[in-house]
Amino acid sequence: MTGWTRSKRAESSEARATELAAPTRGLSRRGLLGLAGASVAGIGLGVAGDRVALVATPSAASASAVYPFYGSHQAGIVTPAQDRLHFAAFDVSAGTTRAELIELLQDWTIAAAAMTAGQDIGEYGAVSGPYDAPPEDTGEAQGLPTAGLTITFGFGPTLFETADGVDRFGLAARRPADLTPLPHFPGDDLDTGRSDGDLCIQTCSNDPQVAVHAIRNLSRIAFGRAALRWSQLGFGRTSSTSTTQATPRNLFGFKDGTANIKAEEPDVVTDQVWVSSSDGPAWLAGGSYLVVRRIRMTIETWDRSILSEQEAVFGRTKGAGAPLSGGTEFSEPDFTLAGREDRPLIGATAHVRLAHPTKNQGVKLLRRGYNFVDGNDDLGRLEAGLFFISFQRSPAQFTAVQLNLAKHDALNEYIRHVGSALFAVPAGATAGSYVGAPLFV
Amino acid sequence: MTGWTRSKRAESSEARATELAAPTRGLSRRGLLGLAGASVAGIGLGVAGDRVALVATPSAASASAVYPFYGSHQAGIVTPAQDRLHFAAFDVSAGTTRAELIELLQDWTIAAAAMTAGQDIGEYGAVSGPYDAPPEDTGEAQGLPTAGLTITFGFGPTLFETADGVDRFGLAARRPADLTPLPHFPGDDLDTGRSDGDLCIQTCSNDPQVAVHAIRNLSRIAFGRAALRWSQLGFGRTSSTSTTQATPRNLFGFKDGTANIKAEEPDVVTDQVWVSSSDGPAWLAGGSYLVVRRIRMTIETWDRSILSEQEAVFGRTKGAGAPLSGGTEFSEPDFTLAGREDRPLIGATAHVRLAHPTKNQGVKLLRRGYNFVDGNDDLGRLEAGLFFISFQRSPAQFTAVQLNLAKHDALNEYIRHVGSALFAVPAGATAGSYVGAPLFV
Repeated sequence: MTGWTRSKRAESSEARATELAAPTRGLSRRGLLGLAGASVAGIGLGVAGDRVALVATPSAASASAVYPFYGSHQAGIVTPAQDRLHFAAFDVSAGTTRAELIELLQDWTIAAAAMTAGQDIGEYGAVSGPYDAPPEDTGEAQGLPTAGLTITFGFGPTLFETADGVDRFGLAARRPADLTPLPHFPGDDLDTGRSDGDLCIQTCSNDPQVAVHAIRNLSRIAFGRAALRWSQLGFGRTSSTSTTQATPRNLFGFKDGTANIKAEEPDVVTDQVWVSSSDGPAWLAGGSYLVVRRIRMTIETWDRSILSEQEAVFGRTKGAGAPLSGGTEFSEPDFTLAGREDRPLIGATAHVRLAHPTKNQGVKLLRRGYNFVDGNDDLGRLEAGLFFISFQRSPAQFTAVQLNLAKHDALNEYIRHVGSALFAVPAGATAGSYVGAPLFV
Repeated sequence: MTGWTRSKRAESSEARATELAAPTRGLSRRGLLGLAGASVAGIGLGVAGDRVALVATPSAASASAVYPFYGSHQAGIVTPAQDRLHFAAFDVSAGTTRAELIELLQDWTIAAAAMTAGQDIGEYGAVSGPYDAPPEDTGEAQGLPTAGLTITFGFGPTLFETADGVDRFGLAARRPADLTPLPHFPGDDLDTGRSDGDLCIQTCSNDPQVAVHAIRNLSRIAFGRAALRWSQLGFGRTSSTSTTQATPRNLFGFKDGTANIKAEEPDVVTDQVWVSSSDGPAWLAGGSYLVVRRIRMTIETWDRSILSEQEAVFGRTKGAGAPLSGGTEFSEPDFTLAGREDRPLIGATAHVRLAHPTKNQGVKLLRRGYNFVDGNDDLGRLEAGLFFISFQRSPAQFTAVQLNLAKHDALNEYIRHVGSALFAVPAGATAGSYVGAPLFV
């Protein structure tokens, strides 16, 4: 043999595996070695085990859900997390005036209100005249349900900056003190082409084509005034934001977002998610701060780690998602409980410990991230990971947790933060007005 | 104003638009100009129109569908097209022997049979021990239904080639005469990094996470024997392959695949899709040929074209998808019918005319493509398009139609073929055997 690259350790693992009885039926020894990688042991026959009961079946309800665009808060934050995402960051085009920026936000508001209600974005859509004009709506969502579409807008720090000594949109004095770029965290490996932006739009829907249609049409409306800076599709939600939802799994195969803030906890939402009028500035009251992090997972490395290591990294079981201190998925972890040799059952660098509110001055984040796979890299590794999204009353909440994680989290061996952005998300728009209007008063 | 880039023609359009009454409510004149681009005319108020009735609602049935892996033909061809796709091409690793290639196909077969039945791929999955070994299944599909998962395998021309004078896998003599790389078509702008491959796997499911899970685990099983060459996610099917399905829309906003081969036409399927034992070689009988084309759409340009131009390009109405010669979606187009000045209602370069069987010696393709959006390019244009997939009894069917289209199709102004591959898809595997076994007998 051959071109198969193997470490010395893999060689010796193979030698060990050779001593096992050859499977009479099932994956070949080589196949099992491929699965098991460098630390194979105790391989049995390849009889497949049934999966657990179904918990995440798409339903007719998920297709027919409609969330109103207008309201005291923007939708897409405490809204039960939809299955699919298209997120886009925009830069306002050079030369665009304050009045034109306002007009853009007005146009976006009208279009978003129409689309979230399952309507085309113009007087005539894709399917009727006039024939001598481009259709106002691009048409690919014709015949599709809204599938719970929400469209959420945010303002990046750069919108409030001065460029060439000029206050870009007369907003410098209205910039929230908290709206400064996130600090550099240990291990950050950020791509500027996947980071930042003057404006952002998060579209979520249970139908990906509906989410894509929204970003496409909003991008089109922005023509000449703002241009796409970067965008990201996510195919699987990784958090529940409602107690009515089953906890989904991330691409490490673990349940994610078990201890997330839920819409059914209004006091926690008020305390942790919404900017209050006393937080300042007044224009942002009822809004929130949105953090996005594109987190690349080195899943090939992860897949070769043994189950006990994977569970130790998270501090939870892979199956039920229960804390390693015992109980079920929703049991509170007991960080004091010790096992063999008096070592804590949930280790000092376990993700669940470091991210827990009790280890972060009570801070919680409303997480709303998505799994992504964007093809593969030149080495044949899937370009896969977590598009992390969180909403919080102050960016300081995220920074505190992320500093803790970036320094100590055992998960860092398997992830790399490659994109990052922060946006101020204004309160919901009132019908007849537009999103972010209080900023421009 | 400003940095807004406009052509002279747009200036004059704006001048015309200025004469219209200003909208009292709705998209701003600028927003409408953004939509309308260079050829705006007759803009009215922005009162949104309701969409047509829902026709593509995800259902509980789509989640619970299960298609058996074993059978006379591979699943994923005439199977009613599922909503989501993950397609991957692999290269067999240097040094891999014929015996190891066979073992890989055996391993893939066992894993595919398990996953399509909703099972984990090993004796123990992601959620149970042994704790000192990596889980055999990566786990992210735990709790998800199979959602109609199909896994379809194919062999590329390079698998049958000699490398450095050596017949790579002893298959050179068994290569189908038809399995040669597709010709270069006019306008092809192919990226080798998105083209070709020794092996391919098409996974389709109504849940994208289930499709991704399959490719990921099959890729992992291949470790050391074959590596991902390229892969593509598709979020929206663009063809129906069953009369039970509504016709979906592509990213041009048009219904696509109306005249597709349907599973309910067994004679057509036999005639156009399956390789017969008289076609040769014998090992491919009951199989098919798979063509994939990554077709980038310049949707920003398309979106600025007027409705009559869009409809002329396709030769169908955008709304109902009816031929411009009249009738409803499923009416046969009448290519002889003429309108004003005796010009044919369906133009000489209309897509529906050039692709029609009557213009291609009766040739039909079973199309099974998907919409994709992979972020955006540096100019802020969505990296969007159609991942075209077709199955046919002979690659000559595709070549004939594509030559016709590449030379004349009015659609070429708005598309660019950037990836291409051809695979021979063997018949279905028998339980106890493996996919492609007759090739190695």
